[in-house]
Amino acid sequence: MENNVFHLQYAMDTFYFLVCGALVMWMAAGFAMLEAGLVRAKNTTEILTKNVALFAISCIMYMVSGYAIMYGGEFFLSGIQDVDVDATLASFAEQGDFTGGSIYSGASDFFFQVVFVATAMSIVSGAVAERMKLWAFLAFAVVMTGFIYPMEGAWTWGGSAVFGMYTLGDLGFSDFAGSGIVHMAGAAAALAGVLLLGARKGKYTADGRTIAIPGCNMPLATLGTFILWMGWFGFNGGSVLKLGDIANANSVAMVFLNTNAAAAGGVVAALITARILFKKADLTMALNGALAGLVAITAEPSTPTALQATIFGALGGILVVFSIVALDKIKIDDPVGAISVHGVVGLLGLLLVPLTNDGSTFSGQIIGALTIFVWVFVTSMVVWLIIKTIIGLRVTEEEEYEGVDVAECGIEAYPEFTKSAK
Amino acid sequence: MENNVFHLQYAMDTFYFLVCGALVMWMAAGFAMLEAGLVRAKNTTEILTKNVALFAISCIMYMVSGYAIMYGGEFFLSGIQDVDVDATLASFAEQGDFTGGSIYSGASDFFFQVVFVATAMSIVSGAVAERMKLWAFLAFAVVMTGFIYPMEGAWTWGGSAVFGMYTLGDLGFSDFAGSGIVHMAGAAAALAGVLLLGARKGKYTADGRTIAIPGCNMPLATLGTFILWMGWFGFNGGSVLKLGDIANANSVAMVFLNTNAAAAGGVVAALITARILFKKADLTMALNGALAGLVAITAEPSTPTALQATIFGALGGILVVFSIVALDKIKIDDPVGAISVHGVVGLLGLLLVPLTNDGSTFSGQIIGALTIFVWVFVTSMVVWLIIKTIIGLRVTEEEEYEGVDVAECGIEAYPEFTKSAK
Amino acid sequence: MENNVFHLQYAMDTFYFLVCGALVMWMAAGFAMLEAGLVRAKNTTEILTKNVALFAISCIMYMVSGYAIMYGGEFFLSGIQDVDVDATLASFAEQGDFTGGSIYSGASDFFFQVVFVATAMSIVSGAVAERMKLWAFLAFAVVMTGFIYPMEGAWTWGGSAVFGMYTLGDLGFSDFAGSGIVHMAGAAAALAGVLLLGARKGKYTADGRTIAIPGCNMPLATLGTFILWMGWFGFNGGSVLKLGDIANANSVAMVFLNTNAAAAGGVVAALITARILFKKADLTMALNGALAGLVAITAEPSTPTALQATIFGALGGILVVFSIVALDKIKIDDPVGAISVHGVVGLLGLLLVPLTNDGSTFSGQIIGALTIFVWVFVTSMVVWLIIKTIIGLRVTEEEEYEGVDVAECGIEAYPEFTKSAK
Repeated sequence: MENNVFHLQYAMDTFYFLVCGALVMWMAAGFAMLEAGLVRAKNTTEILTKNVALFAISCIMYMVSGYAIMYGGEFFLSGIQDVDVDATLASFAEQGDFTGGSIYSGASDFFFQVVFVATAMSIVSGAVAERMKLWAFLAFAVVMTGFIYPMEGAWTWGGSAVFGMYTLGDLGFSDFAGSGIVHMAGAAAALAGVLLLGARKGKYTADGRTIAIPGCNMPLATLGTFILWMGWFGFNGGSVLKLGDIANANSVAMVFLNTNAAAAGGVVAALITARILFKKADLTMALNGALAGLVAITAEPSTPTALQATIFGALGGILVVFSIVALDKIKIDDPVGAISVHGVVGLLGLLLVPLTNDGSTFSGQIIGALTIFVWVFVTSMVVWLIIKTIIGLRVTEEEEYEGVDVAECGIEAYPEFTKSAK
Repeated sequence: MENNVFHLQYAMDTFYFLVCGALVMWMAAGFAMLEAGLVRAKNTTEILTKNVALFAISCIMYMVSGYAIMYGGEFFLSGIQDVDVDATLASFAEQGDFTGGSIYSGASDFFFQVVFVATAMSIVSGAVAERMKLWAFLAFAVVMTGFIYPMEGAWTWGGSAVFGMYTLGDLGFSDFAGSGIVHMAGAAAALAGVLLLGARKGKYTADGRTIAIPGCNMPLATLGTFILWMGWFGFNGGSVLKLGDIANANSVAMVFLNTNAAAAGGVVAALITARILFKKADLTMALNGALAGLVAITAEPSTPTALQATIFGALGGILVVFSIVALDKIKIDDPVGAISVHGVVGLLGLLLVPLTNDGSTFSGQIIGALTIFVWVFVTSMVVWLIIKTIIGLRVTEEEEYEGVDVAECGIEAYPEFTKSAK
Repeated sequence: MENNVFHLQYAMDTFYFLVCGALVMWMAAGFAMLEAGLVRAKNTTEILTKNVALFAISCIMYMVSGYAIMYGGEFFLSGIQDVDVDATLASFAEQGDFTGGSIYSGASDFFFQVVFVATAMSIVSGAVAERMKLWAFLAFAVVMTGFIYPMEGAWTWGGSAVFGMYTLGDLGFSDFAGSGIVHMAGAAAALAGVLLLGARKGKYTADGRTIAIPGCNMPLATLGTFILWMGWFGFNGGSVLKLGDIANANSVAMVFLNTNAAAAGGVVAALITARILFKKADLTMALNGALAGLVAITAEPSTPTALQATIFGALGGILVVFSIVALDKIKIDDPVGAISVHGVVGLLGLLLVPLTNDGSTFSGQIIGALTIFVWVFVTSMVVWLIIKTIIGLRVTEEEEYEGVDVAECGIEAYPEFTKSAK
């Protein structure tokens, strides 16, 4: 009978990972819809292609090298599908304390981790939208998901040393589900790309004004945000890493609750901030507010109360509006606001952790944030530069004017709806 | 070993709540897409903004006051994140009978309940679309989700007395997942708003004809319906409130099966009814038929056979077509049919319960329906009137003509697709 | 205490089925969006109506006759909602070996099976798009889901004899989740319909050229693909049929991992293949590549390693591009590529099984594939012919030119976006 309970425990914790992983995979659709909604019609097919392809590349590269770098598992997962039932049962029996670490399928762990890589990479595509060459972007995705992200992921989650014999965790850095490791890292890679790419034609005028370039499809952007909001329950909820005892189940529940509360706080705060600044109920700011709330809580969704989570999300929602405005002031052109949402608010999320989690320190958070940022930004810059040298980063002016869809993909996204419709 | 089983039981029932809650949260996206598809392009950004904002407001207000009113929990959930593992294990041991009431994370309960509030509020936004001021709507959302809904929810689900010392349940009222408590309540609030607002300009001519105002995006409306259909598995399935024993697991499975069957019955019945009445396979009626089937089964999805569920859904599908036609005859302008789907069919759902559930009576259902309707309608009317007095309910005629998107949000939903596209 | 564990086991395996079933139901939305994105605007409402209606019809017909034919259950499920708890507990005790067959709610099994029928039928709608009469299609759906599919499903999954006293499984045929039984079967029914229908007007010129008819909404097609990708976790993952012990939980996890890996392989391979053939990063080919990868792995997602799954998916992705080109050469007009994705690649999937699964043979796979194809193709042809005789299959030339939306549904999908917009 004891073994039967171990069987159930294993099955439950495995299933929990798979359900959460499926939700995180779903975030790929969220990023695709969000970005497709926020670009112009003529650049929509290309951004969709990027999003589908980057997800696929992430899955392949993480299998080829990423997982091994980050967690030391075998390359190509050759052995994961075999599980020794007796040995597993023995591990349970050995553990003694039922409420100890989780024992679950290695395949479920890989599945959960692989969709995280794709999330980090999805952040990049929005920021470089409307002017980067498709194949340059995909080449970057190969290196980012196969090497850059897994390296820095290893320093905290993978237990690899980064400073001498210390992991970032040893230095007081704590990042529950990846405000820094996933979101700020994605934003750092994006920032390096954007700096090399430059702004879209017509975004900033010679006399210093910023021209709004409205997204072509608001329902898609809204749908994308709702998808991300839903998928985030898996992103944060799965990061508890165990469901199957009372304390952990409760922790998973708090994480769901707080993730939702932070998103709600982000929406309301961003909506009010935008109302005050622009005199309008700016939908795109409300959507970015939701995402900012989610990013802000991701570094620690298990220890705050619901009220604290709402407030943390609201801080993210306020910050993201000002950040978007500020980046435009310094002519960093990010069509979907990804650097603000995931980078600036990702940093905020890291800095909020010590307020509710005694296991982290401000100095640790700052050291971790700096380490991750510098690593990702510098390596990304190098990779972007290499790609720039070999195949170039930016489409031609004419292609940009005509839209990258026809040039890169040969297919218009909405051939019957737009002026250019034949 | 006994404790280990308790740990698993707790974890399983908690996870079940969280998965169902995530599905109900997803319904927010369904309402947003459905409504965005059924309004005109010029009012799309605003309805999206309303849907995102109302979900956020619901989450905040339910935390601030709603949950406490409905279930007597603490304000701001200050204590929910702490769980005493030993005390929980003792509760299990005390319960003795394993198949007794469910013991699970309080946070998971809050999460499941909070997304229900948002559903009730989502119903309102469609009915008042295309002419109500955004901030008036959001002000109403604060009161609806923080006070009006939790009050009537408490009378059945929360165990609070409403007539002397009796709850509605004591009077023979049964509403499994909320045909009345959630759906009809939402429709009652919407009806009060619509009566004060009046019809959209041009909807009804001076000589008594009704002018069809087609929705601008049928794929979105269809997507929204599918999202709602999927999310409803969580809405009804989670309302069993326990998964972790054979009888309850079977009940959850029947609820999934019947929820699906009722939606299917609703689609086919509405499609045929519309074919007979209008000579066309009317997609919007098929979609409303699906939703009507879902609303009709929500009051009792666990006791009917699949065939009964299909028939109940079909009755909802037929009723909703006639209801939509009838409301137009009396010039109640509901752009998405929400009052018919959730209100008229919600009542039908309540009246069908005694056919398969001996624990309810027709008189109990009628008393319950009347109580809920009167409470929500009257309090909503008062709140709408107060808002009307202070900031007004309706946009100006010019704003309505130009579309509320530009006036309220400053952003067009489809700037490149429509005639007004620059 | 032993009984408590049985309760949990039953609940866990039931819940697993329900979650997977909900994901498969979600695929209905995926097909609807994919097809709506790939047809022209003027035929969008009608394809949406077909997709909603076919799902509803599938659910009703499978209840009326399909489930009984396929698995011998009772008609109308009259008894499914009752479960004898004591007898269930006794079954567990009798089984002795905890890791034996799964014991779970019959209602959850029905729910999981019913959504499979709808998948098979969804495949048909895309192939016959833009020219088939709506009611002819729905009439076919009644027979396909109530009789044709359940018959062939019974020969493998239902344990019914097809050759003498042998099931297809007895002959060495193995089809884990339905590359053949579901996907190729749907494609066979579609092919019969397409051959009778003929190509869309203007698709092939008199001098032998193929005219590209671009889909009107690429974000929808992409969304549909992501939805299908996500839903496929339930489709394949649920087909393990048991979660609740270590070996099965591991198998479910491998299935999730491999399903994802195959889709990823399909995307990259199709994208590169299309790049070589057409010099463009063809989004629709990337999407079809994802689906082809998914179909290719569906016949056996549990035994390959992740690397093998990626390669199998890539083979599917390459094959689908050539198949789509080839079908156009022989003037088989399939607007969404469904026959290639589900039929040609479905066959590939069947033939890949013996490479990793010793329980199947190439001869068995070929016999099974032929049996299923001949059965579905011939019976479908008969049914299509009967429908053609009675009400006709094809809309008039004028209706096809004007678009079937107005003719069949009376509602334009995008009344404000297209040229014909009033």
